[in-house]
Amino acid sequence: MIKSEYYTQEIHGPYESYDLGDFQLEEGGAIQNGKLAYVTFGELNKTKDNAILIPTWFSGTSKIMETYIGNGRALDPEKYFIIIVNQLGNGLSSSPHNTPAPLNMANFPKVRISDDVRAQHKLITEKFGIEELALVVGGSMGAQQTYEWAVRYPDMVKRAAPIAGTAKNTIHDFLYAETLIEAITSDPNWNDGNYQSCKDVSAGLKRHAKLWSVMGLSTEFYKQEAWRLYGVNSLDEFIHDFLEPLFCEMDPNALLWMAWKWQRGDVSRMTGGDLQEALGRIKAKVFVMPIDSDMFFPPKDCEDEQTLIPNSEFRVIKSICGHYALFGAEGTAYSEQIDKHLSDLLAIKI
Amino acid sequence: MIKSEYYTQEIHGPYESYDLGDFQLEEGGAIQNGKLAYVTFGELNKTKDNAILIPTWFSGTSKIMETYIGNGRALDPEKYFIIIVNQLGNGLSSSPHNTPAPLNMANFPKVRISDDVRAQHKLITEKFGIEELALVVGGSMGAQQTYEWAVRYPDMVKRAAPIAGTAKNTIHDFLYAETLIEAITSDPNWNDGNYQSCKDVSAGLKRHAKLWSVMGLSTEFYKQEAWRLYGVNSLDEFIHDFLEPLFCEMDPNALLWMAWKWQRGDVSRMTGGDLQEALGRIKAKVFVMPIDSDMFFPPKDCEDEQTLIPNSEFRVIKSICGHYALFGAEGTAYSEQIDKHLSDLLAIKI
Repeated sequence: MIKSEYYTQEIHGPYESYDLGDFQLEEGGAIQNGKLAYVTFGELNKTKDNAILIPTWFSGTSKIMETYIGNGRALDPEKYFIIIVNQLGNGLSSSPHNTPAPLNMANFPKVRISDDVRAQHKLITEKFGIEELALVVGGSMGAQQTYEWAVRYPDMVKRAAPIAGTAKNTIHDFLYAETLIEAITSDPNWNDGNYQSCKDVSAGLKRHAKLWSVMGLSTEFYKQEAWRLYGVNSLDEFIHDFLEPLFCEMDPNALLWMAWKWQRGDVSRMTGGDLQEALGRIKAKVFVMPIDSDMFFPPKDCEDEQTLIPNSEFRVIKSICGHYALFGAEGTAYSEQIDKHLSDLLAIKI
Repeated sequence: MIKSEYYTQEIHGPYESYDLGDFQLEEGGAIQNGKLAYVTFGELNKTKDNAILIPTWFSGTSKIMETYIGNGRALDPEKYFIIIVNQLGNGLSSSPHNTPAPLNMANFPKVRISDDVRAQHKLITEKFGIEELALVVGGSMGAQQTYEWAVRYPDMVKRAAPIAGTAKNTIHDFLYAETLIEAITSDPNWNDGNYQSCKDVSAGLKRHAKLWSVMGLSTEFYKQEAWRLYGVNSLDEFIHDFLEPLFCEMDPNALLWMAWKWQRGDVSRMTGGDLQEALGRIKAKVFVMPIDSDMFFPPKDCEDEQTLIPNSEFRVIKSICGHYALFGAEGTAYSEQIDKHLSDLLAIKI
């Protein structure tokens, strides 16, 4: 195990840990003594029907998702019991760097979106005795998990809001994630996943950050110098003082394991490859919520899927921040749209 | 000088070579005994007013641009004297690999779009005695040169058709080109530009190709398996048997020098940074022709510029092939649009 100064309670907590035991994986093998890091807000009511589940996105932890909730907002802890669960491999839940030998680092097993959702199901049902979720909502890889939940457990999920993500990853998006992977693995100091510190791999992590500067934002973002939203004063600062440090603190293997998982998100694995059948299984009311300037989960790809979901609506988020709109740097210009759609969704009687 | 099996008359010819002499560059320094590789079709008429100039794009040579011309088409060598000029640094004209020491390889001087256009102007006026161009037309970096021509020599250029390119490169596009550069320079075998053979740098060139697979095409391209247009039978073949070999044959320094130039294309350098003033200088009738699915020269960026050009029209090319539509793999579905717009433009009396 590598000691991390980043994946800590101080930076990302407070969070709890749920013991998954020996958790079998779809690709074969198991995570021994698996841990699911999570945090809850609000109280579960007696009928246990006020639970909202929020999975995390690529590179993110539960901490950033806390910005989506608040008293008086759509995701209101005074009304709902909100559980934010860190995806496997994200650095807080069981991950390459925090797993004991022999399954540590490069030997950590491959994890799929389906594994995350089954692990979360175990937490939800066995720890909390919850049998229905008022809402599952997540962005990007969180959207992938949201779709997986709605298809895998259609009777449990009452409402679903996948933001800036797809049910079946596109080939184009697969290739983008591949470039992210190659930016890291091409660093000789990555050493096939057996480095001593993430700082050894900073050259690869910086190239990885640069790729996000292209596909994660938008041309209009730069034209309007919207990097000011991130509290920086120049383009150089945005790249070198925001994006690069952001990723350079992270564990390279964590990013690689999440990227592998992201590439392969696909609910049609449950229906022999038939996406229409898979999405047709969904019983939840679904709001499909792409971001209009998103370069790798573009609205058209999301709309193609939305038309296959029986009880769904297409709700586009407007932003010039591309996929990174998810970070909420635009403040209320973003959060008011999210809250409006989620409030509408939660107001629908199921 | 490095012997190249790629930049040859056999593969890219027949082409001629024009002697630029010692050609001074905007960034300082000069190319000694500079060469401009070019090819012509058709005959220059007596009034010397039937000339069409076609500059080349990033990584391309005059050979690919030959597919844009043909008897009975818009760019008709039976009517026009058509000159296709290879941009400096592209491997055929003076470039890092074909320049003698001491300015060879990594010591090759930085070249700007303005240098290309001044060199082409020398060829056009001194070699052929041409004082007006019926049309300048080019794609991508060829569009950058087209804009530079129209702003730098407004009285010479009667018509201009920049396809899938901008007059002033956007920051977003600058960053994309930066990732292309870093894919190559991060290869330890690039060795600061002093490798023995382009094959030494194949790992970097393959990563560079992978970046094109994302930003050069589109999600719809892959969804529709449009890679079949390139004569391959699978996605893997498209990546490994088309894109990777395409770039792996090229000279890494040539790509780097062109990318540096591409990043800095900006006609407003002629007007102290005032883009409106620069584009306002244009006297040519201009058709601004972006490709609707282009990810790094998107229509919106092109339209913002078009509105600043006095006598211009906005003509969008429809394609699912993104920027790579330029290759013309769609056959008549692409070339008929190009020919229609260029025919319309050439029919306009100036």
